[in-house]
Amino acid sequence: MKKYRIAIAGATGAVGAEMLTTLEKRNFPVESLRLLASKRSIGKKLKFRNEEINVEELTHDSFNDIDILLSSTSGTLSKVFSPSAVKAGAVVVDNTSAFRMDPNVPLVVPEVNPDDVKWHKGIIANPNCSTIIANVPLWPLYKKYGIKRFISCTYQAVSGAGVAAMDELSEQSEDYLQGNEIKSVEFPHQIAFNLFSHNSSIAENLFNEEENKMINETRKIFHDDSILISATCIRVPVFRAHAEALHIELKNPAELEDIRELLSASPGIKVVDDIENNIFPMPIDASEKYDILVGRIRKDPVFENGISMFIAGDQLLKGAALNAVQIAELLAI
Amino acid sequence: MKKYRIAIAGATGAVGAEMLTTLEKRNFPVESLRLLASKRSIGKKLKFRNEEINVEELTHDSFNDIDILLSSTSGTLSKVFSPSAVKAGAVVVDNTSAFRMDPNVPLVVPEVNPDDVKWHKGIIANPNCSTIIANVPLWPLYKKYGIKRFISCTYQAVSGAGVAAMDELSEQSEDYLQGNEIKSVEFPHQIAFNLFSHNSSIAENLFNEEENKMINETRKIFHDDSILISATCIRVPVFRAHAEALHIELKNPAELEDIRELLSASPGIKVVDDIENNIFPMPIDASEKYDILVGRIRKDPVFENGISMFIAGDQLLKGAALNAVQIAELLAI
Repeated sequence: MKKYRIAIAGATGAVGAEMLTTLEKRNFPVESLRLLASKRSIGKKLKFRNEEINVEELTHDSFNDIDILLSSTSGTLSKVFSPSAVKAGAVVVDNTSAFRMDPNVPLVVPEVNPDDVKWHKGIIANPNCSTIIANVPLWPLYKKYGIKRFISCTYQAVSGAGVAAMDELSEQSEDYLQGNEIKSVEFPHQIAFNLFSHNSSIAENLFNEEENKMINETRKIFHDDSILISATCIRVPVFRAHAEALHIELKNPAELEDIRELLSASPGIKVVDDIENNIFPMPIDASEKYDILVGRIRKDPVFENGISMFIAGDQLLKGAALNAVQIAELLAI
Repeated sequence: MKKYRIAIAGATGAVGAEMLTTLEKRNFPVESLRLLASKRSIGKKLKFRNEEINVEELTHDSFNDIDILLSSTSGTLSKVFSPSAVKAGAVVVDNTSAFRMDPNVPLVVPEVNPDDVKWHKGIIANPNCSTIIANVPLWPLYKKYGIKRFISCTYQAVSGAGVAAMDELSEQSEDYLQGNEIKSVEFPHQIAFNLFSHNSSIAENLFNEEENKMINETRKIFHDDSILISATCIRVPVFRAHAEALHIELKNPAELEDIRELLSASPGIKVVDDIENNIFPMPIDASEKYDILVGRIRKDPVFENGISMFIAGDQLLKGAALNAVQIAELLAI
């Protein structure tokens, strides 16, 4: 079996750490592993299998003898370094938004459009976390019934904003409970015992960037610009799993039993829909799991062939690191 | 000016306490105030204006010489005691779900259908909290443009489940942060750093009770059974203000500027829509306020005349106590 020389850029971040763990857990054929981060992380060591690996500084010369770069830096850094990695012969799986809407770059959710990996020109983009988590259960419905339109209202964990944001939720919660002053550094607003409209900038259509990612990336991944999509993206005081309320209009009628069966049989999904005991998808149950939990599956009376569901998925795993490693697995087939 | 002999049933609960405060703050013409609760609250004293008032046991004989009973007990208790209060000559403003859908009982949001107070036969029902909070900004849109359908995804504070549930959020959060075991007593699931589908029972249409309240109560309050309504009601780790993402199809086209003006000029609403600084409605800003905060006002591409907005309102005030006192004010005109 061929083995791959892997590098992780942003290895010390929340997603980078999960990339490391996910490569190990899924037994990815790693020949060598290079960990890259900013200067201030030099000296740190991270464990992979039974080896301690030194974190090196990310530079333009980091990519010699690398087959696959899993990159989870910032959009700005990705634009700077991804071309160098490609030039050095690596394939970049990029978790930032830098190249997602570039027509020369495939945007891939392995359960949805694995074949798009084939036409890459050096870079494959990993979609936005909320988009991936919604796309996994939407895709089987799309294929079988067609989707005319859907609305996603998100309940997004703080992990999407990084480790420091996760720490801020803890610290603010403690300060609140102790009656201390609340300090907001990572977020513009208090997140403890509060929630707010996703703090990405507002575009001309008055949707924020996060919402527009859901709209535009879904269309690109599904290869269908005719789907009507709307979203309200909200940050909630939860650590690492996103939830979403999906209200969907299918093109063709569907029976609930068929939908439940279809979703249960689809990859990456676990149906959690225990009506009698009121057990449905929750962030704490989705955390550290690979599957998207799907429940509250019901007919939606506002649409002709309406279906609603409530879903939850780990933001750091399927929303980021796992999806990136799955893309790498497609490259390694 | 006529003064009224008021009783509050459930005076020691989260909503009861706010009823007391709201009567005082709004300078309601109170002649006398009787505080009623269960046996175990006897001996407690609550302050109204500068007086300490003893809490008395709620019995069938509690309503002599009472003009208006503000009742915030349980649906079961309300069914038992409200008829006795009516028999004794009181008008009951009932905050429970007991009589809301009774065709002989008006269901009133004062900003929407104040005239319905006039045909009461002794009981006036106070709507569900999420319903009131959505109805206040929906009504001006309904009147001016018509509403064909809307979807509400809620982000509901724990206060709706009472004082003990608010304490549970604090205790669980503290236990979580200290690495202790989490105990769930008031809620079936962990609420700290988590969220879950509203734990009311699931009806035959697979919507839960809370969601069906939004659907059925809105239609009754608006006197329009033709509005198509869907909801996903989610409990979030926030103390006392609900938020809701509303995705609306109007019957007639509307310009955003006109909608902003209309909402700004409508009673009970504060438009908070600072696009440049990313300041929109948040639970902590809505808490202890009378107004429903409305923001993220934008055109919604999934509908022909689509409008989306994000709102927040105090669950204990406009969602319960304030709305009840406003109904009492209508009675006192």
